[in-house]
Amino acid sequence: MSRSVGPRSGDAIFSSVERVNAELFTLTYGAIVRQLLTDLEEVDEVNKQLDQMGYNIGIRLIDEFLAKSNVTRCVDFKETAEVIAKVGFKMFLGVTASVTNWDADGTCCSIILEDNPLVDFVELPDTCQGLYYCNILSGVIRGALEMVSMKTEVTWIRDMLRGDDVFELQVKLLKQVPEEYPYKDDE
Amino acid sequence: MSRSVGPRSGDAIFSSVERVNAELFTLTYGAIVRQLLTDLEEVDEVNKQLDQMGYNIGIRLIDEFLAKSNVTRCVDFKETAEVIAKVGFKMFLGVTASVTNWDADGTCCSIILEDNPLVDFVELPDTCQGLYYCNILSGVIRGALEMVSMKTEVTWIRDMLRGDDVFELQVKLLKQVPEEYPYKDDE
Repeated sequence: MSRSVGPRSGDAIFSSVERVNAELFTLTYGAIVRQLLTDLEEVDEVNKQLDQMGYNIGIRLIDEFLAKSNVTRCVDFKETAEVIAKVGFKMFLGVTASVTNWDADGTCCSIILEDNPLVDFVELPDTCQGLYYCNILSGVIRGALEMVSMKTEVTWIRDMLRGDDVFELQVKLLKQVPEEYPYKDDE
Repeated sequence: MSRSVGPRSGDAIFSSVERVNAELFTLTYGAIVRQLLTDLEEVDEVNKQLDQMGYNIGIRLIDEFLAKSNVTRCVDFKETAEVIAKVGFKMFLGVTASVTNWDADGTCCSIILEDNPLVDFVELPDTCQGLYYCNILSGVIRGALEMVSMKTEVTWIRDMLRGDDVFELQVKLLKQVPEEYPYKDDE
């Protein structure tokens, strides 16, 4: 139950992985959101769909993360949150996030994002005020954590597209499934 | 009607622009295609929609391209095609393409892509055999060229997801609108 010696820094990993132009990514993501708004009409449905897409991405992205980062196992949820913020965001989006607002028992915290390539050039029209434009991110975190046996609930608390000064994602650990075989060795 | 001194190489530009992880981009693009297949059902409609999304991205991406590449104006369509292949693909996707199969009057050629981050881990199920999975790329080229006054038709000739050895995009110049004022100075 400890991390391997020498997990790599987010910067080191980011500079070694294959990358594409951030603006292309931003515009492509914008095209998805626009498409969903046209097809689904209801903003709540779009939020749900973005989250689901993110979840599907997260359950696959975790493999790349574990393979490239040398992070094996985090001691606890606190360490997990730090690794997401410092290594995960850097490795995939090229930005760093910070962790704050821990509750007393260490099962709920906020990830703060000041810089977010998803929202470059984005302004929400009045008709989209209920939209969580970056909801794919909450889905990615939820999906990735589920693959390492942590069931979480991920909620937007602050959103720069809604006029807040930062993005704040609350990550709440609901259940940690112990990674054990479902049978005993001596059975 | 000449390019400015010292357009930058695709490599130099690519290393200086902001980037995101290629696998995240690949999976995000995959999520779009899956979403469209679910929503639109008809593969032909999905092809059309991907092309349209690409077009909308291309008409915006051309600005970043011109701003970062120091390419100002290409002498002719031949040079334009070379710049797309050598600078454009490198700058946005991190890969290089080549240009071939020119017709006699220099208005139709093929762009060949051997490496394409959009299709990493992608296999098309039998139900999607008519799908042009990378159709967003043809739309991007068409949109970007339209903003520099070239109306083109962009068609897939070969596709690695269909068992070909490379991706081949045929780009055909339909009309070149001269960039002139619609009135004469002395009128």
